[in-house]
Amino acid sequence: MIKLVYCISRKPGLTDQEFVDYWKNVHAPIGARIPGVRRFVQSRRLSIPGDISAGDFDGMVELWFDNVEALLAARRSPEWKASTEDEANFIDHSKVAYFISEEHIVLDKTSTSKAF
Amino acid sequence: MIKLVYCISRKPGLTDQEFVDYWKNVHAPIGARIPGVRRFVQSRRLSIPGDISAGDFDGMVELWFDNVEALLAARRSPEWKASTEDEANFIDHSKVAYFISEEHIVLDKTSTSKAF
Repeated sequence: MIKLVYCISRKPGLTDQEFVDYWKNVHAPIGARIPGVRRFVQSRRLSIPGDISAGDFDGMVELWFDNVEALLAARRSPEWKASTEDEANFIDHSKVAYFISEEHIVLDKTSTSKAF
Repeated sequence: MIKLVYCISRKPGLTDQEFVDYWKNVHAPIGARIPGVRRFVQSRRLSIPGDISAGDFDGMVELWFDNVEALLAARRSPEWKASTEDEANFIDHSKVAYFISEEHIVLDKTSTSKAF
């Protein structure tokens, strides 16, 4: 499998809570319709006192596909287009980062998970 | 569980292959010694012709801990210090991004995995 990684930032004018609520409740169901997605995870930045990470991204999306061909097919779908259009409602596109990757699981001590 | 996300870039002077080899074969075992790590995944950027992501990061590290306290304890450990020191051998610290996050699993159609 391959994994698309997309780090995102909150659109100016939204509070942290508004951003997270929109991302989870409105955008996630739209993104979940993209064909060929095997796994879809949103990682939301936690605010931790004294943490040095406040200036980086507000969160990350990971989308797994069977292979590059499945990703390229997904990109041509109307569901992908709808998801991209919806991003304008909560994401600051001047502060994003994106790459396609392959996972290497170095260590896994979680009892309920398996490598994939 | 919480997840530390760390997007990284190759140190100038290394080829892509040298970067990946060092990251996997030398650095991963050093990072895997950090106490309290429940899961540790390296995601390496794939080079895909025509892909728009070439300018972003070369990869990402994800480290899962039981909670914030476990992460803060890990940060104070000599193993964390050793891992950080080794980063200078392959990472360009002027091009990294970092945040601590909580996962929300929107969709999972992978037969062998479970939410964690």
